[in-house]
Amino acid sequence: MRTGIATVCLSGTLKEKMQACAIAGFDGIEIFEQDLVTSPHSPEEVRKMAADLGLGLDLYQPFRDFDGVTPDLLKANLKRAEAKFNLMERLGMDTILVCSNVATATIDDDGLRAAQLAELAELAGAHGVKVAYEALAWGKYVDDYEHAYRLVEMVDHPNLGTCLDSFHILSRDWDTAPIEDINAEKIFFVQVADAPKLSMDVLSWSRHYRVFPGEGQFELAKFMGHVVRAGYTGPVSLEVFNDVFRQSDTERTAVDAMRSLIWLEEQSAQWLAGTSAAEGTEGAAASRRRYPMELATLPKVNEPAGFNFAEVKADDTAQLEKLLGQLGFGFEGRHRTKDVQLWTMGQARVIINEQAASHAEPAIAALGFDVDSPVIASARAQQLKAPVVARKVQADEEVFQGISAPDSTEIFLCQGSPDGTAAWTHEFGEGQEHASSAQNAVIDHVNLAQPWQHFDEAVLFYTSALALEPQPFAEVPSPSGLVRSQVMETSNGAIRLVLNLAPAQQAQTARKTYQEHIAFAVDDLVATAREARKRGLEFLQIPANYYEDLDARFDLEPGFLATLKELNLLYDRDANGEFLHFYTATVGSVFFEMVERRGNYDGYGAPNAPVRHAVQYDSLHRV
Amino acid sequence: MRTGIATVCLSGTLKEKMQACAIAGFDGIEIFEQDLVTSPHSPEEVRKMAADLGLGLDLYQPFRDFDGVTPDLLKANLKRAEAKFNLMERLGMDTILVCSNVATATIDDDGLRAAQLAELAELAGAHGVKVAYEALAWGKYVDDYEHAYRLVEMVDHPNLGTCLDSFHILSRDWDTAPIEDINAEKIFFVQVADAPKLSMDVLSWSRHYRVFPGEGQFELAKFMGHVVRAGYTGPVSLEVFNDVFRQSDTERTAVDAMRSLIWLEEQSAQWLAGTSAAEGTEGAAASRRRYPMELATLPKVNEPAGFNFAEVKADDTAQLEKLLGQLGFGFEGRHRTKDVQLWTMGQARVIINEQAASHAEPAIAALGFDVDSPVIASARAQQLKAPVVARKVQADEEVFQGISAPDSTEIFLCQGSPDGTAAWTHEFGEGQEHASSAQNAVIDHVNLAQPWQHFDEAVLFYTSALALEPQPFAEVPSPSGLVRSQVMETSNGAIRLVLNLAPAQQAQTARKTYQEHIAFAVDDLVATAREARKRGLEFLQIPANYYEDLDARFDLEPGFLATLKELNLLYDRDANGEFLHFYTATVGSVFFEMVERRGNYDGYGAPNAPVRHAVQYDSLHRV
Repeated sequence: MRTGIATVCLSGTLKEKMQACAIAGFDGIEIFEQDLVTSPHSPEEVRKMAADLGLGLDLYQPFRDFDGVTPDLLKANLKRAEAKFNLMERLGMDTILVCSNVATATIDDDGLRAAQLAELAELAGAHGVKVAYEALAWGKYVDDYEHAYRLVEMVDHPNLGTCLDSFHILSRDWDTAPIEDINAEKIFFVQVADAPKLSMDVLSWSRHYRVFPGEGQFELAKFMGHVVRAGYTGPVSLEVFNDVFRQSDTERTAVDAMRSLIWLEEQSAQWLAGTSAAEGTEGAAASRRRYPMELATLPKVNEPAGFNFAEVKADDTAQLEKLLGQLGFGFEGRHRTKDVQLWTMGQARVIINEQAASHAEPAIAALGFDVDSPVIASARAQQLKAPVVARKVQADEEVFQGISAPDSTEIFLCQGSPDGTAAWTHEFGEGQEHASSAQNAVIDHVNLAQPWQHFDEAVLFYTSALALEPQPFAEVPSPSGLVRSQVMETSNGAIRLVLNLAPAQQAQTARKTYQEHIAFAVDDLVATAREARKRGLEFLQIPANYYEDLDARFDLEPGFLATLKELNLLYDRDANGEFLHFYTATVGSVFFEMVERRGNYDGYGAPNAPVRHAVQYDSLHRV
Repeated sequence: MRTGIATVCLSGTLKEKMQACAIAGFDGIEIFEQDLVTSPHSPEEVRKMAADLGLGLDLYQPFRDFDGVTPDLLKANLKRAEAKFNLMERLGMDTILVCSNVATATIDDDGLRAAQLAELAELAGAHGVKVAYEALAWGKYVDDYEHAYRLVEMVDHPNLGTCLDSFHILSRDWDTAPIEDINAEKIFFVQVADAPKLSMDVLSWSRHYRVFPGEGQFELAKFMGHVVRAGYTGPVSLEVFNDVFRQSDTERTAVDAMRSLIWLEEQSAQWLAGTSAAEGTEGAAASRRRYPMELATLPKVNEPAGFNFAEVKADDTAQLEKLLGQLGFGFEGRHRTKDVQLWTMGQARVIINEQAASHAEPAIAALGFDVDSPVIASARAQQLKAPVVARKVQADEEVFQGISAPDSTEIFLCQGSPDGTAAWTHEFGEGQEHASSAQNAVIDHVNLAQPWQHFDEAVLFYTSALALEPQPFAEVPSPSGLVRSQVMETSNGAIRLVLNLAPAQQAQTARKTYQEHIAFAVDDLVATAREARKRGLEFLQIPANYYEDLDARFDLEPGFLATLKELNLLYDRDANGEFLHFYTATVGSVFFEMVERRGNYDGYGAPNAPVRHAVQYDSLHRV
């Protein structure tokens, strides 16, 4: 698959964008006119830069408001087009995008439109240019890809074809199956964009909220499957207008974009294989070979089996040790070669890393995921351009394959074991796993703060590299604004990550870091809380008003309510079960949560999150 | 008018919110349940805090999903309600908001709904509570205020009335005239919110994009006029869910909120006066007296007549002096008592203030507006809670009334003169106005960067205190993201302010301040540019590609195009006229623009703004 990207997806100057696209590994780019107009580089210089960078200049765009106009306007439009065709010759470009008319069309007549497009195609042909005509979702008379293609067929000129853009098609819920009926020679270009499903006017949606494939909710693999089955072999190019990407780091966004196409390629191949299998015709491998477009594959991974460990890091680790000890974790010893400690409670393993920078406050540094094969998972992640994390090991120690998530948390790919133990624990202490506290525990979920520039990138990262599934997006009120929350999890809930986008902090807040946490699940939360209290744990103090409201909402048994209140426990209930949990005080940017899931409760106590935020805010502001 | 605000409008804890509301001068508040639930203060403590602050506790809200349910659910709902009524007794509150059912209604039957609401009203009565029933715009069966009122009438219970919320009514484009037919005794509460007209689902629109009155596009004065004519005399309370306000400074947002109600009060009185006059019944003053609600008035101002001056400030002013001199400004002398200089070009006056902090880069510090009466305009601004700016004057010097705009620019209210001169210029140099350069000039517009937290506040500030009119909102692409742009101007264009919201700057940008500028209009821009070039002015360098595109778009006369290119001039044309302009290089965060308006061109060369941004970005990144 030939990969491409429109320069409008990225921040920076044309030169910066081109360099970033080359570094990210794109085959070609679409030049968005404004990027050229505002560039100090001449068309000839741009052509040379592209050649030097090994980037194809695959599409010049957009040419607007051409068809369905009066004769006078047609004349002006053809003159305007000729200027662009001359420019394209200097750039060495041969394809231009012409959008269906939005602003100046006054005549709704397919015959006239075809005649005008034929004139344009003829002029284009004289300059060696091909015109890719695209139906915009908000085109005045032509807003549907099948209509655009009918016009192309009517004109039947070698220099006129169509451009298919997934946004304009999927935002309108058009059926994508008829793409297969399009003559592949007449598909001059394919643009892809994903988007969250928003109910707003399609123009605003398109101009601000498009995202890269895998970061939204469109069925892009299916769209691409139809394109492949039509026999198309040209560029598949990203055209993503996104307010955040436009102001983020150019190179990093380009890599995120490239990752999305690599992933889409795999998903498209899987969709094709699945469809062929369903049709009962051939096997997956054979079905791929039937189509002229070659779709690369990736090393396959299943979803992770669970958390292997979590790692926190600090310059002074005393507070972390104290908290874990009070929660019931046992100290299992120090690593034989590194300045790290192991603490466990049942199968919940926490590494305390003492190698932080001087004065660094406690923070979550790394997570271990149990996977079938660390080597294969790492290979997949690297093909998806995940940055590799190097970790020194001695010769006889377990080698951890690590990658860096978009928020810089290190994700280590570990060899899981059927009994939930981890071989590497032998590198700690006496070389054997110790009996820990009375209660068993596992890591239930981890809550990570995401930088606002990398929220969508994180969704694609965990989806593509680690086979987690995004859950419906939520928003939680806090005293300093709405916290946007995206859960990524495995189908069985063995891995649950909560990605939170914190509001911009108020200027007067002394400590600005958004708090992150690790939650552990136990069988008997009340007992755990009582023991922790005996050990002197500082619980997050829940206001009395909360328990009154809880009682009004759930009509709880008075003794149970009194226990919740006594121990600062929070409570939630849904049709599937119940959820009890409590939070510790915060050290640095980290706190811990203990949870008990009763029945098949599958949530995170979302109705209680505002209480937690308010109390944490209050305690920060009292400092 | 009794003023109120819901605590959900503001950031912070309940206590912080209450204090901010008292400081801003609200009569009462609505307690949003979540703020109480998450508060460490008991209901009794909250009651005492409110009493100490002189704040009424006017509404407890929301009580959701009550009506149209099965008998089992009704029983649970009544129990839930009773808990809240008990809580309200402890808070000393007597009115609760009950929203039309969204989630749990299963029976669409007005008879049943009325019967259930009657049970609720009876229970409320036993606790001395009044129920204000409100139709949510997205209510499952009840989504229309007239429907909600019909139910209130059916029940006919002294403890059941309705709550009118401008958002739920105006977002659905319901006619507001029938409000006058509602029995005023049955209107238990009125909530007001404004909003920009967005085409998106009404729930998302409501939860994220509401703004304070005067910051959006709803016809709120008309809404309030109908409410007043209905005979309502209770609280008029803001309920504004806004993502930005929720994370902004609590006290400042409360003041912005209060300003919006003061302004709305005046606008409502004017609407009533206008309507009465149109009906030919009575004069404005008499019409106000007819209604039981008293509406306060403000000192009246007309729109400003023009810019009196602009002031720039720096520690080292050499670069500013050089730029102004090269543009053709003449140095008129230093002030006799202050460290400021006066530079003029015709009627364009620029003050260079040398009193900036050490190492402060050049920046726009103040603007003078010509008004009919500085004293009246200042009085109005102060009643609208604009912060007063103090400026020292000697006994015989002109006293400037100054206020501080939301972005901290100081706005001085000056006495205009019919011939465009300014009396205070005699305080400079030889005590007389000097003949300046050959060309006349005026300040055409000023472009100011707005902090993201105060963009809406700025719109209301200039609308309410200075009688400017907001124009349609625009967005301009730049290499570091979209720049959001709001023009505020007088009807004749004598004052034009462009409020720009810059994208979050890329971390790698060395100089992060968004650039602001002052534009001067001259009669012959080509001559001005030639003279400036002779004086060695550093023009912003416009790329050659721009002129090729310009030619393709406008088909310009070759000699004219060559002149534009030679002098780095930008060009725009619309149906009304033409626009020529050029920019200087930037010093500190300031640059200057010279413009020539031909015919009735009324814009700002918006198609050229991306070119300006790109070239400025490029020069910053080359530094």
